[in-house]
Amino acid sequence: MKKSRDPSKARQLETFDSAEKKLKQIFVDLADNVVNEKPPVMRIPLRTASNTIFDEKRDMLTLGEREGERKFNEIGGVRSFMQTCLLARAIHEALVHDDHPTIRDLYYYTLHTIEGTEVETFNNQDESNTIFQDIEVMTGLLREQMGVVAESRGAMVGQVVLESKGNKIDCSKFGIGAFNIPSLCDQIPILDVDADYVLVVEKDAIFQRLNDYEFWRKNKCLLITGKGQADRATRRMVRRLNEEWELPIYVLTDADPFGWYIYSTYRAGSISLSYESFRLACPSAKFLGMTMTDLEKYEIPKDHLIKANDSDIKRAKELLAMDEVTGQPRYPWFHSSKQWRKEIKLFLTRRVKAEIEAKSSKGFRFLSDVYLPEKISNKEWIK
Amino acid sequence: MKKSRDPSKARQLETFDSAEKKLKQIFVDLADNVVNEKPPVMRIPLRTASNTIFDEKRDMLTLGEREGERKFNEIGGVRSFMQTCLLARAIHEALVHDDHPTIRDLYYYTLHTIEGTEVETFNNQDESNTIFQDIEVMTGLLREQMGVVAESRGAMVGQVVLESKGNKIDCSKFGIGAFNIPSLCDQIPILDVDADYVLVVEKDAIFQRLNDYEFWRKNKCLLITGKGQADRATRRMVRRLNEEWELPIYVLTDADPFGWYIYSTYRAGSISLSYESFRLACPSAKFLGMTMTDLEKYEIPKDHLIKANDSDIKRAKELLAMDEVTGQPRYPWFHSSKQWRKEIKLFLTRRVKAEIEAKSSKGFRFLSDVYLPEKISNKEWIK
Repeated sequence: MKKSRDPSKARQLETFDSAEKKLKQIFVDLADNVVNEKPPVMRIPLRTASNTIFDEKRDMLTLGEREGERKFNEIGGVRSFMQTCLLARAIHEALVHDDHPTIRDLYYYTLHTIEGTEVETFNNQDESNTIFQDIEVMTGLLREQMGVVAESRGAMVGQVVLESKGNKIDCSKFGIGAFNIPSLCDQIPILDVDADYVLVVEKDAIFQRLNDYEFWRKNKCLLITGKGQADRATRRMVRRLNEEWELPIYVLTDADPFGWYIYSTYRAGSISLSYESFRLACPSAKFLGMTMTDLEKYEIPKDHLIKANDSDIKRAKELLAMDEVTGQPRYPWFHSSKQWRKEIKLFLTRRVKAEIEAKSSKGFRFLSDVYLPEKISNKEWIK
Repeated sequence: MKKSRDPSKARQLETFDSAEKKLKQIFVDLADNVVNEKPPVMRIPLRTASNTIFDEKRDMLTLGEREGERKFNEIGGVRSFMQTCLLARAIHEALVHDDHPTIRDLYYYTLHTIEGTEVETFNNQDESNTIFQDIEVMTGLLREQMGVVAESRGAMVGQVVLESKGNKIDCSKFGIGAFNIPSLCDQIPILDVDADYVLVVEKDAIFQRLNDYEFWRKNKCLLITGKGQADRATRRMVRRLNEEWELPIYVLTDADPFGWYIYSTYRAGSISLSYESFRLACPSAKFLGMTMTDLEKYEIPKDHLIKANDSDIKRAKELLAMDEVTGQPRYPWFHSSKQWRKEIKLFLTRRVKAEIEAKSSKGFRFLSDVYLPEKISNKEWIK
């Protein structure tokens, strides 16, 4: 059915105004400290494992309440204090001039030898990346909200109309091509959608094949691929289609722990970057397949299965493991799900995996004409 | 200037008819052998280093004249004979049904235990990939010409109009997004071009930034990125824009041996897959930058340079090395160019490299507003 956008959910396209203000606020607060004769101090939420919590209500990992202090007047803090100011100023400057640099551009832009010393502002990009993440959690803004561009990889097709720089972009008009989702995808309003769900496909070649068959037209859906592990823009687009247009999200990967981990990233974000979840995670995303159970149900021949290697086994165990620091499950959404526990244990017992393409043993169109429609109409997914 | 397509160069869109015929011919030839009471034999050009030659006239690596024989009546050849027939038949079958499988789909489709034995048709995908390459050189058709889909990664923007499945695709109407170049890009006619050259950008984030500034509009060019090492479809699209529309190709990468190798792939293809060059290589592609000479000319600060690591040094040496088997330069286009030899030697002396983003030390728009226009108008490229 054609989705009509619920006006109460209509999202105003974000401008960079609030980012400009929040960045400026950092300096206003510091100036306040100085005026009031207090030592300048910044408060930064801790990005540690022990301050990463599973928010059951929102069903995703987030940062806890704990903060650290970064002080100008302390020898141990002054360097990162200086770096934070330098980088925050550069981001603000770029915004004012309507420039959208990358994190690397910002690093080189701010890198120099401090006058009168032999000290470098940054020793390497890792150092600047860490400070950048501090600024993200301090302002509560992700890099994209500050207009900072990251690498992108994803593609999308289907009956969805976007808008960018005054152009209407109809993603059903790309033939065998597709729309390349850019990093700053929040700058692109989703004007119209005529689809019942979104199918997120791990592998680009499978995405292309489904597009070639016009699977999206026959099955009234949108097709998206992150070409392997999802980049940020693809995750954000998936989340927006779910949030703004209430489309159910189904994820299709290989039957192996790496594929399940890819699903997990769409669903809940990554542990080390839990502060991003609030914009990038999509907790209602469902895992369509392939599951270990599918291998038997669809009679994948034994010689089509691949022996699991050590890193598969290691990852599978991690999916059910407890965090050493917090004592909580590392992936609560796997740990608390009876179905997921069954699947992962089945994998650990059988120690085999399978690629999506293994379905081609039953014919090249088995995936598009039988497996996917059957799974979706029977609601055979894992939450 | 608006390019009007030279009618003599107008390329009819390829259909898969000739692929169907050539694949069928394999079996017709074998049947002829049988009818004439000769042992069935296939002749397959050798894909070895010693049969890889630098074709000076075409200015690219190609396969030499030497062929191997694959015989049904020889115990050492019968397995690969069977595999070649099996795979060729599957490709033909897919073409007849208008299916466009991947190499992996074909592997699983043809994989089974041979009746009455415990022998598998293929032991693993590597084995099937090798046979697939044999079929490519035997028929003189690349996988895409046989309708076989590969992973794709590239994106394109600018004043170019494509056509696919009856849709006109205007690549100047995507705002901050881009056209995702599909694997079977030869199925997409290039209807119209209004540009003076093609700028191929190694890094996706740089591509997005240049697109954001509408560099292509201001500088009358097309922008393409392969997002790192180029995939086949991006290389093919670059080649077609050069061949069909006579657009000069300029390549922009980091100043390091890996970047120069990426240029090399666009220009001449890879050594291990030299049989692809005739469709994927673009010998007239020019290297725009960054060069080692640029680092001094544009006064990249010393602390913006990165110390070369062992694999950089190793790769740089390879670029000038002789092939152990043939005794010829491994990369004749580097070896025979005075400028390239100078650049690579300069790298090996200084042992530093630089990222494109290092230009941001001079301001976020230095790359787009100064470096690129200056380089192009001064014709400062390396051939």
